[in-house]
Parts: sequence; structure tokens; C-alpha cells
Amino acid sequence: MTDSGRAERYRTRMQRKKEVIDEAIARADREQGLLLILTGNGKGKSSSAFGMMARALGHGMRVGVAQFIKGRSDTGEEAFFRKQDQVVWHVLGEGFTWDTQNLERDTETAQRGWAVVQEMLRDPSLDLIVLDELTYPLKFGWLDLTVVLNDLKNRPAMQHVVITGRGAPEALCEAADTVTEMTDVKHAYRAGVQAQKGIDL
Amino acid sequence: MTDSGRAERYRTRMQRKKEVIDEAIARADREQGLLLILTGNGKGKSSSAFGMMARALGHGMRVGVAQFIKGRSDTGEEAFFRKQDQVVWHVLGEGFTWDTQNLERDTETAQRGWAVVQEMLRDPSLDLIVLDELTYPLKFGWLDLTVVLNDLKNRPAMQHVVITGRGAPEALCEAADTVTEMTDVKHAYRAGVQAQKGIDL
Repeated sequence: MTDSGRAERYRTRMQRKKEVIDEAIARADREQGLLLILTGNGKGKSSSAFGMMARALGHGMRVGVAQFIKGRSDTGEEAFFRKQDQVVWHVLGEGFTWDTQNLERDTETAQRGWAVVQEMLRDPSLDLIVLDELTYPLKFGWLDLTVVLNDLKNRPAMQHVVITGRGAPEALCEAADTVTEMTDVKHAYRAGVQAQKGIDL
Repeated sequence: MTDSGRAERYRTRMQRKKEVIDEAIARADREQGLLLILTGNGKGKSSSAFGMMARALGHGMRVGVAQFIKGRSDTGEEAFFRKQDQVVWHVLGEGFTWDTQNLERDTETAQRGWAVVQEMLRDPSLDLIVLDELTYPLKFGWLDLTVVLNDLKNRPAMQHVVITGRGAPEALCEAADTVTEMTDVKHAYRAGVQAQKGIDL
């Protein structure tokens, strides 16, 4: 094909693409608070939530975070975001559950944590709430899914909520507006590389 | 089962989980700069890269960003991160390609952009580099994959690089340490909800 032929085909292809995209944008005309689920076994669930958080802060929005499993307080994200205005950050977990090995205590911790989340879900001044690793307390039965779904449903209309964690329950995905599954195609960890600061921590 | 039976089974299960995890941690003992690819059609690729960026900044690391497609400069992530110390931010695209519809111009823009990236890939003071939506210039042939792979390979040993975008070329995935595919299970946009500030923008 000649150069001008290639250029013309490229122009036509992009013109068609633009039409499809413009149409889709015109169709999507509602504004509402979204419920997003980031699940799957792959890397990037929590980091994606924290990226949306950066976006929201860039628009001057207020953000609340609740971390359910990580009891550690030396993560990069926490160190970074705690320094920002407009951020409320709660660490509600007591470390990984396989460290405590005590069902009753884990249940109590999770339920105390949910009470904190309930307050955020009633506060219309919070534009975005990140519930990091909430799927685990649900999976292990520490929290009642019906209660959680009900509280999410009754939140302020324009409040966005992002939930992360493996194995999101089906009913939660049904209630969500957007569900993304992260799949590991390949992972450095399995090749013997340890968790790296700034990437995993 | 009795309550104490449940508690005991829980303890045993978590104990086993802890052993598996501790073993994996012991095995993963190398430190190195990672090449991560975030690809797939789902939501969360760029936001995940920006979340890692927040992590890295929390550890006092320096981060460079190059955005290849987005020519818009009103995104939340840009507004937010440009205000942070330790961040170098380049917008190298001239808007979506389906807006320009000019192959020669798009190619020139991308190649000028890559020259900027090359400088970052030679700068050991940058701990993390985010190449946002780099897959598109590769897919459309604006950049030569061999050149890109070679520059990535010769970067400083401890420098992490995160590349986002749909349809990452196979050779790029082969060169990567970690590849995550994001899949849309459900997307609010398809249900007529427009892109939301703080979530999509």
C-alpha cells in the first residue's frame, strides 16, 4: 500500500472509532455515586483504589479509607495519604487473620470496624470511600453481608464506594455498578522476587 | 459443630495458611527493579499505576510519569500528583488518536515522547516510572517495539517501571516480571452512567 493509502486508511479507521466513542459518551448521561468492586487474584486491586483516591483528591473531593486486614501501619500508601488534606484514614484490621488465629477476636475487630464505616456511609461530605480488603471479613463470616449491602444501599446518592479484595461475594457484585477482575498472568513473586517497596507495600 | 469445634477448625485453617505464606515469603528473597504490565479491557489499569505511585511516594521514592495518549490536562491524577514533591510529570500525547486522525503527526508526537522517556530510563534517581497507555503507540506502530524493549532492558537495575494500556504486545509481556490483566465483569458506563470525576477522570 502507498503511504497516502496507509494514511487514508488510518484516518478512516480513527474517524470510525471517534464516532463509536462519541456515541457512547452521548448515551452515558447519568451522574451518580458508583459502587465499584475490584476483585480477583491478580495484583492491582488496592493500588487501583488508591489511584482513584488520588484522582478524587485532585478534584478537591474528600476521601475516607478503611483498611480491614492490614494491621501494619508502614505501607507507603498510608504514609503518603495521611499527609494529605481531605483524607480520613482508618486501619481497622489487627494484622492478617492467619496471624491472629482467633475467630471470636477477629469477628469483634471486624464488627467494631464496620461501625466506623457506617458513620462514613452516613456522611455526605465524603465523596469517595475506599473499603480496602472488605471481602475477607465477609468471606470469613465476621460481617453480615445483608447488613453491609443495606448500609451501602442507603449511603448518600453521590457518594462513590470502592471495595477491594479477592473473592467478592456474588450478591455484592450484583449490587455494584462496576466490577473489575484482576488476573495474574505472571507474577514476580512466584519467580522469587520479594515484595517491593513502592510496588507491593 | 460446637463453637469450640468451629474455633479450633478456624485456628487450624489459619495456621496452615500462615505456614504456606511464611514459606513463600522465605522463598522470595531477591530485590530488583520490576517491570510491571497492567493490561486488559477492564477498568483500573492507570489507577492501579497511580496507586503504586502513591505507595512509592510514601516511601520517599522519586517517580516519573509519562502519559502517552491523554492530551487532556484536567485529570484528577495530574492535578493531584503535580503538586507533590518528588514527581516529574510529562504529558506526551496530543489527545486521543481518534481525534487527530493523522498518522504522521501521531508518529512524530510519540517519538518525541519516547525521547523524553529515554532520559528517565537513564536516570537512576527515579525509583519508579509510570508509562501510562504506552501500549497504544506500540499497537499503532508509532514506536518501534525493539527500541522500547532495549531501552527498558538497559535501565538502572533497581528502577521499577509500570506500563499500562490495552493489548500489551506479547514480547513486552515476556520481558515483564509481573503482568496483570484487568477484565470488566460489569461496567457502569455500559449502563448509561457517564465517566465520573474521581473515579474515571
